Amino acid sequence: MKHQISVVTLGVRDLARSRRFYIEGFGWKPVFENEEIVFYQMNGLMLGTWLRQELEKDMQRDDLVTPGAFSLAHNVASRDDVQPIIEQLARFGGRILRSADAPVHGGFRGYVADPDDHAWEIAWNPAWSIDEQGHVTFGL
Amino acid sequence: MKHQISVVTLGVRDLARSRRFYIEGFGWKPVFENEEIVFYQMNGLMLGTWLRQELEKDMQRDDLVTPGAFSLAHNVASRDDVQPIIEQLARFGGRILRSADAPVHGGFRGYVADPDDHAWEIAWNPAWSIDEQGHVTFGL
Repeated sequence: MKHQISVVTLGVRDLARSRRFYIEGFGWKPVFENEEIVFYQMNGLMLGTWLRQELEKDMQRDDLVTPGAFSLAHNVASRDDVQPIIEQLARFGGRILRSADAPVHGGFRGYVADPDDHAWEIAWNPAWSIDEQGHVTFGL
Repeated sequence: MKHQISVVTLGVRDLARSRRFYIEGFGWKPVFENEEIVFYQMNGLMLGTWLRQELEKDMQRDDLVTPGAFSLAHNVASRDDVQPIIEQLARFGGRILRSADAPVHGGFRGYVADPDDHAWEIAWNPAWSIDEQGHVTFGL
């Protein structure tokens, strides 16, 4: 099978609150939205923010909880970009989990929870290349 | 900021059990692994499966729970591929949440939970294009 993730869907409680974080905090533009979902075109995949109860109905389960055992990362080109973006996200409904510092495995990173407590790592990782379309390639 | 997700990291309890699902179930090949993490190169981003307590330490929180309010999707080229992949994943440690059927918004999809209860949607979506590198573009 192709090594492929086509969509990351986050369950949200309040679409307006979530929109503010992604549109004003990250500065991303939706490619589609209605009263229950917003889609953002990312680097070779989609990000969807969907009302949690609709996601639960689609999955046929009703027991989703937060904070889930996962994180999403947004990599930036410079170490100096990391902390300002974390602070920007906190101004638009995010909550800082960890201010930026240097992990033992290299680079520089911090974490912010979105308004639904989904964790975003904001990272500078000089070992991984990012092309002009934002496609990330593993490297050591 | 770039519309970019560089990594999806899933917290796992047992790396061997998780490896079996991703390597034998999906048939994906790691680009890096050690005793706490496995990385897979995906379509313009990385998938990481990391011991949950290490992810928690990195986030500086210790309250991650499952099943989280999110899903990942893997899109396939044909409607006929959806259910066989769901069944294949179930043979390697997955648990079927919803067998494939047609949602009101079109296409064909079902859901499987990985061994750590992270949900994967397996979907055929004829409205979204997938190029040879697996990059997905929104379309209606």
